[in-house]
Amino acid sequence: MEEEKLRRIVAASGADALFLEQDFLRRYVTGFYSTDGYVVADGKGCSFFADPRYFEAASAQLAGSFVKVEAGAFDAAVARASEAKTLGVPFPFISRAACARLEERGFTLTDCMPALKEAMKVKAKEELDKIARACVIAEEGLLATMPRLKEGMTEREAAAVLEYEMRMRGADGTSFETIVAFGAGSSVPHHETGDTKLKFGDVVLIDFGCKVEGYCSDCTRTFLFGDDNEHEDFKRHYALVLKAHELVKEKLVAGMTGREADEIARGCFREAGLDRFFTHSLGHGIGLQIHEYPLLSPRGEEVLADGMVFSDEPGLYFEGKYGIRIEDTVTLKDGRAVSFMNKTAHDLIIL
Amino acid sequence: MEEEKLRRIVAASGADALFLEQDFLRRYVTGFYSTDGYVVADGKGCSFFADPRYFEAASAQLAGSFVKVEAGAFDAAVARASEAKTLGVPFPFISRAACARLEERGFTLTDCMPALKEAMKVKAKEELDKIARACVIAEEGLLATMPRLKEGMTEREAAAVLEYEMRMRGADGTSFETIVAFGAGSSVPHHETGDTKLKFGDVVLIDFGCKVEGYCSDCTRTFLFGDDNEHEDFKRHYALVLKAHELVKEKLVAGMTGREADEIARGCFREAGLDRFFTHSLGHGIGLQIHEYPLLSPRGEEVLADGMVFSDEPGLYFEGKYGIRIEDTVTLKDGRAVSFMNKTAHDLIIL
Repeated sequence: MEEEKLRRIVAASGADALFLEQDFLRRYVTGFYSTDGYVVADGKGCSFFADPRYFEAASAQLAGSFVKVEAGAFDAAVARASEAKTLGVPFPFISRAACARLEERGFTLTDCMPALKEAMKVKAKEELDKIARACVIAEEGLLATMPRLKEGMTEREAAAVLEYEMRMRGADGTSFETIVAFGAGSSVPHHETGDTKLKFGDVVLIDFGCKVEGYCSDCTRTFLFGDDNEHEDFKRHYALVLKAHELVKEKLVAGMTGREADEIARGCFREAGLDRFFTHSLGHGIGLQIHEYPLLSPRGEEVLADGMVFSDEPGLYFEGKYGIRIEDTVTLKDGRAVSFMNKTAHDLIIL
Repeated sequence: MEEEKLRRIVAASGADALFLEQDFLRRYVTGFYSTDGYVVADGKGCSFFADPRYFEAASAQLAGSFVKVEAGAFDAAVARASEAKTLGVPFPFISRAACARLEERGFTLTDCMPALKEAMKVKAKEELDKIARACVIAEEGLLATMPRLKEGMTEREAAAVLEYEMRMRGADGTSFETIVAFGAGSSVPHHETGDTKLKFGDVVLIDFGCKVEGYCSDCTRTFLFGDDNEHEDFKRHYALVLKAHELVKEKLVAGMTGREADEIARGCFREAGLDRFFTHSLGHGIGLQIHEYPLLSPRGEEVLADGMVFSDEPGLYFEGKYGIRIEDTVTLKDGRAVSFMNKTAHDLIIL
């Protein structure tokens, strides 16, 4: 991130210094990824404390940046922060044990997550670029996977192929556990990918994403594996979910709350008398974490603004029969919703 | 787990009730996996609180067990625990924010992790079976991957193939980010898998593992991609690492501390004057988490006992040149170390 942005976060946190040991927050501030390490940032600057495993790589990557790479771990980071009385740490992510370690050293702790959250929910250009790449890889991975789906293949095998295709295109890994649901499994929004075999006429729901330099993509597509001509209800419901999904992209504008955005889709289902089958929220923020800010739900009071990135994922679920979800990763640009996902068809595909 | 075992953990925790919201701990107690939910356990029994996404699946899977599945989330779990004054929560894993939510409801919190850790470090038969499966899948995945390594392939592509082969054999995912290092990258113990291309004569180091029903495997193999006859030092060092690795399997017995186990390998390197190139610990416990208890390191004071599972992973690292690590997932049975990994060769392979 830019030095000035970090300075504003430190000021907004109300703490004398930030003390960050969570990998995604270290990465957010410094851009450098490591499994361990500490970031200390105050009015005087920003230090990243790296143990011997990471010192060399961090020094090389962060050379010329405003981040000073220093050797050491917890004790060195505490020493660097020693002039601070109040340390800003992220209360939703720091453990009780980690808090105790800092309090034993005499620091008073305050929650810096509100300040970080304000900053993190609006993405900088380089963050948007990484998310865009993660979205392209996800869609291209799906396109490569679809022709490889065969009758008798298990959900787990389909997930294996999709993850492989994303990895081969440059993904660092999945952004969450890939959900592949065949048939009735699609009616469970958090279906666990298992050993169910694909058969002719199945509804196939795939909810997946990948990471590029820590940034996530999130996508869901629902389609038919052959049409056994017993899918009239499904097709009608698919068209309605697609209508809700597209309506969100069309009507969502900066300045709306998450609740108002959610209502675009929910209202569309309500008009059809089906809103009780839309059993989750419209969307969630996406960034270094797969579930971030803002929340697009009936309880979402945050105001949506340019640079935010979130999912547009309306769905309908008919228990024991089938479920339908259509999801894009979307951003707000010049006040309007713009999807990162235009390579895969949104209209119903019959394989 | 067995009801009696949970009862002992509750008693040992010193709390009136355990209150668990961490996915791996919920899974440990109930055997059921979900992204959200709460477990409350006290002298009267154990309840799992599932929201609508999981209620049906949890009820089906846990029918007939001692775990009572109840509908609801945080508020329902708090109500169930309302007679408790002191709640046992895992201080290293519960967030400051989650602690505050419970303290606001009037509970006093105590750390139940010491009691859980005591139980978790000794695996029950069904846990050992899952780890054994994760180990077989990892090794078979590697065996399928090795002939697919080709000159010009990137580290990331090799990781993609390996992860695919494990997934196709039933893995639920990787147990950590797969490390594939070609050439000098192998000298960095935590090398980040990237776009380096494989070339003739490269040292290849692969550190990887997968999960089966939440349980992890962990394996490292180092080999040569063709022998350019400039590897005399490497071969000598390989033989020494293998000697240290095998010596641990031979000499480690129940009753030793983690420090004494570590010293078997470290002493072997010291005799050769190379212990300064062994820059990490000999091993770590493996279970529902990839890094658990006990710790086999110069600071490991825990006493090793039957049923524990840990890595035996000595290594030597020559900065900028190459690194060698040979790692098995191992358990203690009848007082002796038994490896879960006998399908892949430990002797140097030249592809």
